[in-house]
Amino acid sequence: MAEAIGVFDSGIGGLTVASAIQQALPNHRIIYFGDTLHLPYGDKSSKNIQKYIKAISAFLYEMRCRHLVVACNSASSVLSSVNSMPEFSSITNVINPVVDKVAMNMGIKSVGIIGTKRTIHSKVYSNLLQEKRSDLNIYELATPLLAPMIEEGFVHNAITEQVIHEYLQKLPKVDALILGCTHYPLIKTEINRFFDGKVQLFDAPKLVAQHVVNCVSERNTVRDSEDCFYVSDLTNSFEKTAQLFFGHSIHLRKSDLFEL
Amino acid sequence: MAEAIGVFDSGIGGLTVASAIQQALPNHRIIYFGDTLHLPYGDKSSKNIQKYIKAISAFLYEMRCRHLVVACNSASSVLSSVNSMPEFSSITNVINPVVDKVAMNMGIKSVGIIGTKRTIHSKVYSNLLQEKRSDLNIYELATPLLAPMIEEGFVHNAITEQVIHEYLQKLPKVDALILGCTHYPLIKTEINRFFDGKVQLFDAPKLVAQHVVNCVSERNTVRDSEDCFYVSDLTNSFEKTAQLFFGHSIHLRKSDLFEL
Repeated sequence: MAEAIGVFDSGIGGLTVASAIQQALPNHRIIYFGDTLHLPYGDKSSKNIQKYIKAISAFLYEMRCRHLVVACNSASSVLSSVNSMPEFSSITNVINPVVDKVAMNMGIKSVGIIGTKRTIHSKVYSNLLQEKRSDLNIYELATPLLAPMIEEGFVHNAITEQVIHEYLQKLPKVDALILGCTHYPLIKTEINRFFDGKVQLFDAPKLVAQHVVNCVSERNTVRDSEDCFYVSDLTNSFEKTAQLFFGHSIHLRKSDLFEL
Repeated sequence: MAEAIGVFDSGIGGLTVASAIQQALPNHRIIYFGDTLHLPYGDKSSKNIQKYIKAISAFLYEMRCRHLVVACNSASSVLSSVNSMPEFSSITNVINPVVDKVAMNMGIKSVGIIGTKRTIHSKVYSNLLQEKRSDLNIYELATPLLAPMIEEGFVHNAITEQVIHEYLQKLPKVDALILGCTHYPLIKTEINRFFDGKVQLFDAPKLVAQHVVNCVSERNTVRDSEDCFYVSDLTNSFEKTAQLFFGHSIHLRKSDLFEL
């Protein structure tokens, strides 16, 4: 039986990562958990996010997931402080694979990072980058309106361009930009256009999927059951938005994990 | 001892209402509860919002509030289905005072309503308006990006205008517009400009405050203690945003009501 891969996010943005993992490992079962009841994590305190991580990890482990992917930057940024996690064979966050890729590229001398307030204020990207490449010039910028804008479907219109411009004009000249939120791959084209294609963009989905591929021991397995997508609170609009992030329509199931 | 007034919202937008109540009843103590842990309610299921309303109402009643103001459209829209509420002397929501004011104005033949997805899909405004004025033409429009945009402080710039334009151009010609979200008073000027001042705008704060004034029995009382502002989760950014909504800086306290 193939080792199932548990993917979780505060909402449905992590489906961009789940989709990349599904393409890289089509024979492995993915169990996704979107904590839509507590979305967005970007505004939550570390203490509460840590509680949610523990509860969701235990749930995914009970569902026989042996690989955990924390497909949420806010959760990834506090992950190391969570004690007594279940014994997964591997835990992949969305930050390290991206940081490693950027750090290895010696042509990059200056890098910008955009993300939610929580991700940026945590300095998780800049601290890790600095450890690996003390010569790097690093510029961080919180861009909190981008995620709700993308969820609203404003991904290829004048508002998208204007909001991107309003934020990114604040950055000094950089060689590379890290898209530090799982929503942002959906506006990668527009961000690329803002920079006239002159800035290298780094985002999580493919790099995280590659990391998971390296962690999984048996690749030529046969899947024994379908992927499964849970959310902690279900409303009509989520299924529509889920399609935007996953690339095709999926069935969302309501989990009772956080019922009062 | 003055009867305290409990005001609650999913977050800090309800502070626009609390501020209007404070101005109308300066001698009454206000206890505010912002359920920032579960914010935004606009994306939550009715069942969960009802649970939060029960818990917060009980908390405010225990804090000796005798008047309850549900300063949140999403919560107001499901309020009538909540069973066994504490015995407040009065319960004011943010919907009825606005609906009553619009319905009484016989010069208004067509009205638009904007709000979160939840508020609009609940049809709470249109059902109430139709009951009172079957001759009204009513047009509803979900404008979910407005609230996060305002929270981000984009209230008087080009993005504000563009997002307002993107949404409001979808409305047919109306005589009046109901701003069905406690955040929207902050962009009233910009909305007014979009309509060249030719559409009457109706929002909650002053109308709700007037309703509370009518409910409170003793007006010439002396306040025995300061106003108090609780949130169910506290991060740095809330205090800054709170100032935007309340008009001046306030001290937010963390409540343990929803601790896991």
